[in-house]
Formats: sequence, C-alpha cells, structure tokens
Amino acid sequence: MHERILVKDISEAARTRAGEEVQVSGWVHRIRDMGGITFVVLRDRSGTAQLVLPETSSEDGLIPEDGLTLESVISARGLPVLNEKAPGGAELQLRSLEVISRAQADLPYQVNGDISKVGLETILDNRLLSVRNPKIRAIFNVQAAIIEAFSAYLRSKDFTEIKTSKLVWGGTEGGTELFEVEYFDRKVCLAQSPQFYKEAMVSSGMERVFEVAPAYRAEKHDTPRHLNEYVSLDIEMGFIESEKDLIELEQGLLTHIFEELSRKNAADLALWKTSVPDADAVAKAPTVGYEEAVKIASELAAKSGGGRIFDITPEAERFLCEWSLKEYSSELVFVNEFPRRYRPFYAYPSDANRTMSFDALFRGLEITTGGRRQHNYDAFVETLPRFGLKLENMQNYAALLRYGCPPHGGFAIGCERLTARILGLANVKEASLFPRDRKRVTP
Amino acid sequence: MHERILVKDISEAARTRAGEEVQVSGWVHRIRDMGGITFVVLRDRSGTAQLVLPETSSEDGLIPEDGLTLESVISARGLPVLNEKAPGGAELQLRSLEVISRAQADLPYQVNGDISKVGLETILDNRLLSVRNPKIRAIFNVQAAIIEAFSAYLRSKDFTEIKTSKLVWGGTEGGTELFEVEYFDRKVCLAQSPQFYKEAMVSSGMERVFEVAPAYRAEKHDTPRHLNEYVSLDIEMGFIESEKDLIELEQGLLTHIFEELSRKNAADLALWKTSVPDADAVAKAPTVGYEEAVKIASELAAKSGGGRIFDITPEAERFLCEWSLKEYSSELVFVNEFPRRYRPFYAYPSDANRTMSFDALFRGLEITTGGRRQHNYDAFVETLPRFGLKLENMQNYAALLRYGCPPHGGFAIGCERLTARILGLANVKEASLFPRDRKRVTP
Repeated sequence: MHERILVKDISEAARTRAGEEVQVSGWVHRIRDMGGITFVVLRDRSGTAQLVLPETSSEDGLIPEDGLTLESVISARGLPVLNEKAPGGAELQLRSLEVISRAQADLPYQVNGDISKVGLETILDNRLLSVRNPKIRAIFNVQAAIIEAFSAYLRSKDFTEIKTSKLVWGGTEGGTELFEVEYFDRKVCLAQSPQFYKEAMVSSGMERVFEVAPAYRAEKHDTPRHLNEYVSLDIEMGFIESEKDLIELEQGLLTHIFEELSRKNAADLALWKTSVPDADAVAKAPTVGYEEAVKIASELAAKSGGGRIFDITPEAERFLCEWSLKEYSSELVFVNEFPRRYRPFYAYPSDANRTMSFDALFRGLEITTGGRRQHNYDAFVETLPRFGLKLENMQNYAALLRYGCPPHGGFAIGCERLTARILGLANVKEASLFPRDRKRVTP
Repeated sequence: MHERILVKDISEAARTRAGEEVQVSGWVHRIRDMGGITFVVLRDRSGTAQLVLPETSSEDGLIPEDGLTLESVISARGLPVLNEKAPGGAELQLRSLEVISRAQADLPYQVNGDISKVGLETILDNRLLSVRNPKIRAIFNVQAAIIEAFSAYLRSKDFTEIKTSKLVWGGTEGGTELFEVEYFDRKVCLAQSPQFYKEAMVSSGMERVFEVAPAYRAEKHDTPRHLNEYVSLDIEMGFIESEKDLIELEQGLLTHIFEELSRKNAADLALWKTSVPDADAVAKAPTVGYEEAVKIASELAAKSGGGRIFDITPEAERFLCEWSLKEYSSELVFVNEFPRRYRPFYAYPSDANRTMSFDALFRGLEITTGGRRQHNYDAFVETLPRFGLKLENMQNYAALLRYGCPPHGGFAIGCERLTARILGLANVKEASLFPRDRKRVTP
C-alpha cells in the first residue's frame, strides 16, 4: 500500500505522471451507473474523487460478484486523467479494484445524503456513520483547528500548557450541579472547571497557563446551548490590572483562531456557507458595562415587541450581538462590570456592587466567561460569608492565596460553543463527537 | 506594570539600556543578608535573578516595616548592571520595591530547598508550594513540551485531533478496574482509554487521529509506575499492514519529541542532570519478539543471580532495556508478537497464538502499548467467545466494523510515564501536577 496517493492528489498525478498507474484507497461514497459506465465516488481523508469503471467491469471481474456496497473500504489502481467535467477536474480510469472491507448492505444511515433533511437525534444515534458525511466531518476539522490555533497562540505568548485532575473533592463554585464518582471507599466529583487549579498554577509561579480538557456540568435541562460534558479552553494569567487585559488577550486569540481557520479550513467553512470575522472586526468589538448592556437589550426587545429584559438572558445576548453588528460592524461584543451577586466569590470587586468580570458574546451566544480574581487573602476571607461559604471548607483555596499570589485573572471558552457559532450550527451537540446529555451516553 | 521585563532579560537590559530603570515582578525566592547589603533572589516565570538592596534599605523604606517574607509577590524597579559574580551575569540595583502580595511567614514548605531531601508525600501534600521550586517546575515545562511536540508531529503527518467522551457505558476491554459515575438516574464509567472512539474515528474516515486526554484506572495497588488518573497520548491510524508501521511512526514521533526537548528545554533537562536520546539512538532501537524477549530477560536474570522470568514483568523490562543499550546503544526497545492470551479481543492475530501488538520500553519501563486491531467483522464475531464476550453486549464495537473499516492500529503513550523516564523520576506521581491515588484526592 506504500504507493497509495490521496484523492486530492489525483489531478496533480494526471499532470505530472500521466500514463502511470496510481493507487487510491478509501470508502465508496457513491455509485452511479450511467448506462454501461459506472462511476464510483471514492472518499478518503482528503476528500472525494471520481473513479471510472470501464463498461466491461463486471465481466472483467473488476466489480466483485456480490456487488459493490456503499461505504465499503476499497483499494483501486488506475490511470489519472484530467477531465473538466469530473468533480475536482480529474478522475481515475480504473484498472483494478480490491474490496478491503465490505460494508453490509443494510446501511442504517445514508452517509452521502443531505444532512439538512436529517434530524439531530438520527445524526447522533448513528454517529459512527454520520461523521463520515463530508459536511459533518468539516465540523470536527474546524474544531481540531480551533484547538491547534488556541494552543499555538498562547504558547507564543509564553503560556504553559497544564493538565489538571478532573476528580475533585467538591465544586470550586460550591454548586450542586456536580456528578459524583465512586472513588474507592469515598465519593469525589467530576470537575466543573479547572478554576482552582489554573489559579493555583498562576500563583505557583507559572504566571500564564492554559488547559484543554473536559469539564462536567450535571445540568438536568436540555437546551441547544448546553452539554453535560464539554471541552473547556481555559486560560489564566498573572500580573493583570483588570478584565481589560483579558479582553485584549481574547481579541488577539480569536483573531489568530479566525485567521488560521480562513487560511487552512476554507473548504470546511465553505461547506457550511460561512466565514469568520477578520482582524479588523474583532478589534472593533465594543465592551459595554452590564447595566448599559441590559438597557440596550431591553430597548431592542421593546422595539421588536418583546417584553422587558432584566438580565443578560439568551434573548439579551442575541439583541446585544445585533446591536454590536449594527453599531460597530462586529459580531463580537464584550459585557463587563457584572454585579457581584451574579458572580462567584472569587470575582474581583471593582466597587461595592460590581466586579471586574466579563462575558464574550459572539453571533448571539455567550462563548466566554471570565474576569480578574481576588488575589488578596484578607479580602477573600471577608468575602466568604457574603456567599454563604465557610473558611474551614475553603482551605485549598485559601492555600493558594496565603503565600504570595499576584493579581490575576482568566477566562474559558467553550470549544463546542465556539465551533457551533463559527459554523452556524443550531445545536451545540452537533459540535461534540460523542455528546452526553441526560438521555444519551452512547455511543 | 506595562514596563515589566522578565528576569531572564536583565543582562540584556544591562547591555542595551544601561542607566535606565527597569521593573521586574515575581516571587521572593531567597533573601541573603550579607552584613549590610541585602540580596533578594527574585523568581518569575523565566527564572531567577539577584536584586541588590542598598545598605540603607530599611531606613529608606525600601524594605517594608514588617519585613520581606519568602514567597511574597513583589514588584521592584532598579538599574540593571552586569556583574560577573551574580548568577546569570547581571543583577538589578534596586531603587524601589512594592509588596504586591505578602506571603504569611508560616511557610509550611521550603520552596528554595533541595528537593532530594524532601519525601514524595510532602512534595505532593504541598503541591501549590512545591511546584514553585525551579527543579519541580522543570518537570512540567518538559511535560508541556512533550504534549506540544506530540501534537505538532502528528499534525504534520495529517492526523486530526479528536476529543471524545470520558463517560462511557462500560470498559472497552471489559475489565473491572472502572470508576463508576452517578449519571442522573443511571451509572456510567470513566473511560479507561479512548480505544473504541479512536478506532471508530479511523473507521469513520478520519483515517488518522490523535487525542490528548485523561484516562482512568481504578487499580487499588499503589506502585511507582501507576496513576489512577493519567494523561493518555493516544494515536490511531488506518491503512497499515502490521505493527511495524506503528513502531516506525513511534520512532519518528519520539525522535521529534526528543529533538524539541533538546532544543527548547535544555535548561530543564540540565536541572535533572539528564539528556534525551538522539535520532540515531532512536532509529537503532531493536524490535524483539515476545518469546525472544522473555528468553533474553531470563538469561540476564539468571546471570545476575535472579530467578527465572516467564513474562514481560517490570524486572524483565529493566533487563531488556539494559540489553538494548548494550547490544544496540539504544535506551529504547520494542517487543512485538505478544501472545493472544495476553492481549485484548481486538488485537489482530498474526497466527494462531500471536498478535500484531507491541510494547515500547524506554529506560527500564513500558511507556507504550499498541498494535494492529481486528478490522474484519466476521473474524471479530468468531473471536469473542475466546474472550468470554458476547456479541449482544458488543453492539457499539460491532457497529464500527460492520460498515467498512480499513486495516488499522494505534498505540498510547502515558504522558506522565514518558516525562518520568526522560527526567529519571523515581515515581510517576512526581510527573502529575495533581496525582490521584487511593488515598489522595486533594489538592
């Protein structure tokens, strides 16, 4: 199999190695019988290409006696030829064909079909087949590129990648939405976020850290924006002054991610008929205070005949993104100065009622929550009663502030949410290879 | 704080900006009172440097009234000057000093001490402080570099990064060493490995995939080579002929990782007085069949007065690495042709009793298990009874073979094990930021 070429290279081979047999391998994506001549569309990791079987194929033994089934894995040899009418401008005129793994004929899911006509549950129930569809595959190409660009950008800014435990003694935020794990003779929880660990590593001298890892939320409700298990892109950095340093970092980071996607995933974006904001649009993203943001959303809601808005609800997020696009030509908007009552104990107060925390909204949805954290031990201790927390239960957290902790902050981007917003997916589950919800734990 | 420079750049500043004040920020690593003159060693993410306080510091108010405590976070301004006697060849003559976060004086762990004199339990109990030690910090610099090099090499070979669920319906290998999770109204398990998912994604057309993610083993015993939660560096690829393709891939991969470490982490390796094998040594690594490997180890055991060896035990792994170093000048050795009885049902048989699977041993320890997998549905169904498995319980696995699956295989490298072997750490727990074992779930 060492001579195998990818189907994307057939046209190149037709130009440079005309008359020379080449070998391709992959999955039978489509079979078209055009009255004598049979066309097989072959799919490999690089895309699809047309194989042309001569009229006498079945007599020649080119096609196996039990026929060629869709999704079978085959290896084929033939002559690469340029053909304007063929998709990609070239095709392979077959000389031999070997079935490596015959797909059973009872295919429960039509891989080469139009996915807009298939329901989400069917797509997820048949994940091993649905991800073979080039348009669905494109989602995960984009997701891999996001993770690569995220990591590369942060490394270029001197961040250290960390890997922290997902088995924790309790929720950082003291919430109840935790999954319990039977851990030998005790119970632990699945981490909701690496919040404690990333702050601890900043305070331990790494200064700038990031982590790409699963996070868990035992939320019972099923919405198009939630997953019970998701990939969290986490960042934390020391020696910041306010959340504005973080917003600036996120703008640089998103710009890099978008530029990389434009450069390397143009075909994937094209399949979803979408594009990403350019550097200029990201730079123009406004930052608006919480109270002002609620007012803007409320006014837009009133204009469109909706009710009043009292918080940054999903509806408000949509209105704020509309507003940002109209006023600033940016699909991205930052909301800062969140009230203390809406943020966890570790949010750094900017005054008696407000915090140095922020959300990033993109294309109608929150993709990031973050902010500066409390780094002062005495202020931390004073704050706890306000949140119904007791110091004796917070000894791990106290330890990270007690022995020298720089001013710091960070944020997290939901990887599936960002993927879904970039591609315009209706449900975040589409952007998870194996999503978990209250009902779904397989495949 | 925008003028801050890193301590590694003080000598550069002394050369290019002599007479100009610069600002540094970081942790008080050491304080030395040299009869009047006080030296403070400051540590930031780039390393350590010497700050020189004038004799009149306390009168000037340079040192705070309550004194300067070790591990406090400070910001300091001063003149960078070259000084051959100073560590790094330069120092900062202080003009001002601000304590940003005062460390309490009851430091429970000596950050600047000699870690060879501290027990592992103390290091782990005080993780937030122990990781501040430059030599311990180096472990995690190396680990981050391993993950970066691993990912970069595979991307360059057209592998797609995937993220798969860690909440699964049962163990891929049917084992009992699983942690159970209370998942709403049912129980699921923490994934022992992404084995099923990575095979599924190869068979679904991605062909070449990798994943960096936590894996869980509910092993009750406590050994220097095991973790209950570890970072698994997983690889799977399609269209291979045998495990030899995988061994070749792993040699290329390890060569790249080692080259990157030599290039970028020389200082970290130097702290541990170690180096990594060069490309030539990795290329020379022998591959030896299981039976032959047992014989070699057994003979070496006999020579050294030990008992007979009947399997690739930890002792045998050490002997095989000794043998490889002596005979092939390589600290790496591959063992293949493992008996079917020692490998899971999905191992591809090379004959009635042996499989196309392999281990990689490095510096005395197994760092990788892998092999070619069964891709033929009928052969899979035939194999199940031999392993006490029933097809009706294996429907997810069956689905990945039923509709076109190329010959494929893969392997996994334990990230902490590789880190530990590279640095010569006695216990793999040292290479985990927050290791989990039967007794330890904090911090």
